Formats: sequence, structure tokens, C-alpha cells
Amino acid sequence: MTTTTPEDVRRVACVGAGVIGGGWVAHFLARGYDVTAWDPAPDAEARLRRLVDAAWPALTRLGLAEGASQDRLTVAATLEEAVADAQFVQESAPEKLELKRDLLTRLDAAAPPGVVIASSTSGYPMTDMQTTAADPGRLVVGHPFNPPYLIPLVEVVGGERTTAEAVAWASRFYEVAGKSVITMKSEVPGFIANRLQEALWREALHMVANGEATVQEIDDSITEGPGLRWAFMGPMLTFALAGGEGGMAHMLDHFGPSLKSPWTRLEAPELDKDLYDAVVAGCDEAAAGRTIADLVAERDQGVIDVLRATGRLPRQAAGHAEPKGTM
Amino acid sequence: MTTTTPEDVRRVACVGAGVIGGGWVAHFLARGYDVTAWDPAPDAEARLRRLVDAAWPALTRLGLAEGASQDRLTVAATLEEAVADAQFVQESAPEKLELKRDLLTRLDAAAPPGVVIASSTSGYPMTDMQTTAADPGRLVVGHPFNPPYLIPLVEVVGGERTTAEAVAWASRFYEVAGKSVITMKSEVPGFIANRLQEALWREALHMVANGEATVQEIDDSITEGPGLRWAFMGPMLTFALAGGEGGMAHMLDHFGPSLKSPWTRLEAPELDKDLYDAVVAGCDEAAAGRTIADLVAERDQGVIDVLRATGRLPRQAAGHAEPKGTM
Repeated sequence: MTTTTPEDVRRVACVGAGVIGGGWVAHFLARGYDVTAWDPAPDAEARLRRLVDAAWPALTRLGLAEGASQDRLTVAATLEEAVADAQFVQESAPEKLELKRDLLTRLDAAAPPGVVIASSTSGYPMTDMQTTAADPGRLVVGHPFNPPYLIPLVEVVGGERTTAEAVAWASRFYEVAGKSVITMKSEVPGFIANRLQEALWREALHMVANGEATVQEIDDSITEGPGLRWAFMGPMLTFALAGGEGGMAHMLDHFGPSLKSPWTRLEAPELDKDLYDAVVAGCDEAAAGRTIADLVAERDQGVIDVLRATGRLPRQAAGHAEPKGTM
Repeated sequence: MTTTTPEDVRRVACVGAGVIGGGWVAHFLARGYDVTAWDPAPDAEARLRRLVDAAWPALTRLGLAEGASQDRLTVAATLEEAVADAQFVQESAPEKLELKRDLLTRLDAAAPPGVVIASSTSGYPMTDMQTTAADPGRLVVGHPFNPPYLIPLVEVVGGERTTAEAVAWASRFYEVAGKSVITMKSEVPGFIANRLQEALWREALHMVANGEATVQEIDDSITEGPGLRWAFMGPMLTFALAGGEGGMAHMLDHFGPSLKSPWTRLEAPELDKDLYDAVVAGCDEAAAGRTIADLVAERDQGVIDVLRATGRLPRQAAGHAEPKGTM
């Protein structure tokens, strides 16, 4: 299919250079790649260079790959010029289906044969975007999180007409380029993380719309609460620990009935035996031999590390008034 | 109302000593309080002491208050004995409305007059729980997150018959005891963080039920993705940064239409002008004078700190194969 192995890629094209596309540019530059970018906006180059400039100190602290340099960025005058020599193409255009479909068709026409072209789309299935391309087989979704130069996750999934080879190549390439990859077996609108994030976002918008919570309260409720755990232990394993020594099974026994409570506008699925078993077994698998006590110790250390690292040792450790009286 | 000021409290009673109640016990012990606990389960004391034991190393690393000791824990034989001398009562019984209502009624009858009694309920409105108590005015919700000895957040809210003084007293007491407090103005089922968390949890359960994602993929999608940001910057302000230099207004212009997308089973509210304005203004307020560039720098540093603190410097900084070829 493609002539370059993921390990041998040196030249990456980034098409669309807004927040996400520009973030990809910064990431690939920091990893030592030659990057060619294109964006039709009149002020795109200045904005892109500002974005890369702003990201560079963080990337330097993280550690640049040998030879990494902002000088390796070329801003092309045309889309065709941007991808003419590319060994991988990342498309990050605005989130409009028609626009992305047309752009991917043009990219496919202009890029060297066999080169994989990935879309940063936040949620369109590639099946819907690849309909007019001459070679749909090389078009994949490679969905990053903002900022792509720091958040490791990339969700990779193909459309109905994408080849398995293109999906595997993209997944491997992103890994080589320093990302954490989830390769999805099937297309789901919004992929995985965005579905979770979107559920939370919509519930937050409902609360603001109804005057139930302010923006500040919503943000505080996460950063002072569950967000501290989610930085290193996902919601499923975290919830398993709410079940005490009984783990997820006990948690579902205890909190399962809450799925009927109006704690969110989202209707819950029926917690039947199949789902119960799947969640419990999935947590066992994710725990990978760690006992509940191991996981509790890991979570506790993680929360302390995160609080300390972000300069927020809880007030209890920073000298509140001691309880008074005879001791 | 109560005779003890929040700053002068020395004796706390914890009723219900499972994961949450036991976590409260560990927290109050670490803060130097005398704690009396009660739980009707036959093995409750042994389980509670194991839990406190397991938490103690973490609490020691965080820094114990002067005089803090596991020896300050007394396990009482009866509920009445547990609260007889308490200056504050934290109820953490199983999540069953009838049970909590009865327990709060008994606690109100047994605790010294004026002492504030808080429920750890995950979502019941106090209005529904305080109906049979002789003095409902002192009953408040003080909803923690697991584990209460590490996660700072406590959501405080009263029911219709709770006095404003009891709510204010509880909020102040939790602050003195080292917690981050959100004092809610009105009762919403699930309060704030649980509504957000529950929306995410339900979407996750739907995905498992439909075979769209595994438990492991769901957890990875958060810990490698948005969870890294949420440890120190909430979902609202984080999303504002997806709007680039235009902030939340630009983000809503760009991603607002996605609210119509099937990216979660949760229906979105109408993004009308009122909601749009409220979200944008709320983000401005939360930013408190910080520019988008300030927030980007803060987010970037935060992500790096969190990655480093949890031993997960992204692979890009830990020596992947460098791009090859002439440089």
C-alpha cells in the first residue's frame, strides 16, 4: 500500500491550521518531523506561527526530539503543494461534513499514492466522509484531543471503505510519533472519549440553562472532585473502588438503582445481567491482577501526586487552624 | 443555633462506616479530630479499622494535623452512644431513601440540640429526607467524593426546612476541616458533580451494553485524553480553549452545531442566545482576567505537571525512535 513504513516517515503535511491543526503542527515539529502546513485563511500563517511559538516552551520542557525545530515548518501556498511530498497527511478542517468530504477528495487526488490521510474530525464517521474520494481505502480518522501536542490520546478508526492496512499503518505511525492510540473496531458517532465528554458537556449546558449551577461551579465540581481521579484512573475503575472490598460488583449492587434516579437528563441502559457481567468482567480485566487494595493505594498516591504537582495540596495539608482543646 | 463554632469543633460522629463513611472517619482523624463511629454491620469495626489503616500512609504523606492519631477513633455500640457527645454528625448510610430518612430522624433525636447533622447522600434532596425529623432545620447535605480523605470537594445544600444558618455552619466547618466547598443555592437531584459524572457513566454503560467500547478503552480514553485536563481545569474553561483566540464564543460558533450530533444519547438543550451568553459570560468570569494565552500556558503546564507527577511523561519525551534520514 504505502511505500514508507511508519518508523521511516520524515515529512508530514497538516491541512487546516486552526487550534487542532496548529496543535498537530507543533506536535510533529517537536517530534523532529518536517512539516508542511496549509490553511486557506488569510492570516493563517501568522496565527499558526504564534500558536507554535506559544506551545514551544512547553514542548521544550517535555523534551524535543533530536533535530526538532520550528524552522522545519513550511507554510505552503496551496493544498496541492502542501501534500505533494508528504509521507502522511493530517486533515484538521472545520467540523463541516461537506467541507471535509470535499477536502479529503482533493487531498486524495493530490497526495502521493498510498500515503495515509487522517482526519481530525471530532465525530463524523469516515464512511460518510470518504464517499467521493478516488482512493477511499487510505482515508482514516485520527481524532486527537486539544492540545494535540500534549494530550496523548488519538482515536483511530476507518470507514467502510478504508483498508485494514491503512488503519493499522495509522495506529502504528501515531505510536511512533508519541501518541497513545485507541484503535476502534467500529464507527460510533463521536468515537469514545467525545461521547463521554459530550454527555458531560450537555449535562453542564442544561444546568447552566436552568440556573442550577454556574460555569465556575461546574468547573470547580470537576477539578476539586472526580477530575482529580480521572487524570490517571478512568471512570470505570474509579467507580469500582466505590464498591469497597467488593469492587465493581458491589458498586453495581449498591448504586445500580441510582440509574433510575434523575441525576442527569441521560436515560440509563437497563442494568441487566449481561451488562452487569460485562462491566464487572471488564473491570477485572482492566485491573489486570491488581487487587482492590492495590488499586486503592494507586489511586491515593495518584491523587496526592496530582494535587502536589498542580500546586494544590489540599488545605488540610497546608495548615488550617488545628482543632483546639485539651489533647 | 449550635453552641460550637466551626473552628472549635473537636468531636465528630460518623454514622455508617462503609467506603464513604470510613473515608470520612479517616479524613477527620487525619485532621486531628476525635471521631466516634457507628455502623450496624457485624464486621463493621474490623472493616473500618482496615480502611483507616490503608488510608493512613497516604494521609501521613499529605501531612497529619497535630495530634492526629488512629487512636482517636472510638467505635460505639449504638447510634445513640455514637452521637451523644458529638459537635458534628456525618451520616453515610447506604443510598436508600427510607433508610436515610429513618436514620436522620433517629440521629436528630439522639444528637445534642443544635448540632448540625450532614448526610453524605449521593443524590437525594434533603427535603425528601428531613420529613420526619423533629428538628429538620439542622439537617443538611454534605456530599463528598471518594475517597473523602483525599478528594477535596464537598457539595453542601439544605432542604426546604433546613435553616440558612445550618447550611452556612456546615460549609464553614468543612472548610475548616480542609475541604473545598460548593454551597448550592437550590436542590438539584444528584447535585452538580454527580450529575456530570452520572451522564458520563451512563453513556459509558450504553457503550459497553452495545459493544461499542470496552471498559478498558473507556478508561483509557479518559486518562489519556480529557481526564488529564480536568484534574486542574474544568470542562467549561477547557472547552473555551478549543475556540482558539476567540475563546468560548468561537468554540460555541464552531462546535455549537455538534449539539445536534448523535455524539451521546443525551439530548442537548437549545443553544439559544440566553444560554450562549450565559456560557460565554460564565467563562469570562471563571477566567477572572486571565487571557486565552494565559489559560493556554496554564493548561499546558498543568498537563505536563500531571503527566510527570503520575509517571507518564508522554512517550514523545521518553525516547521513541527518532525520525530518520538526513536532517
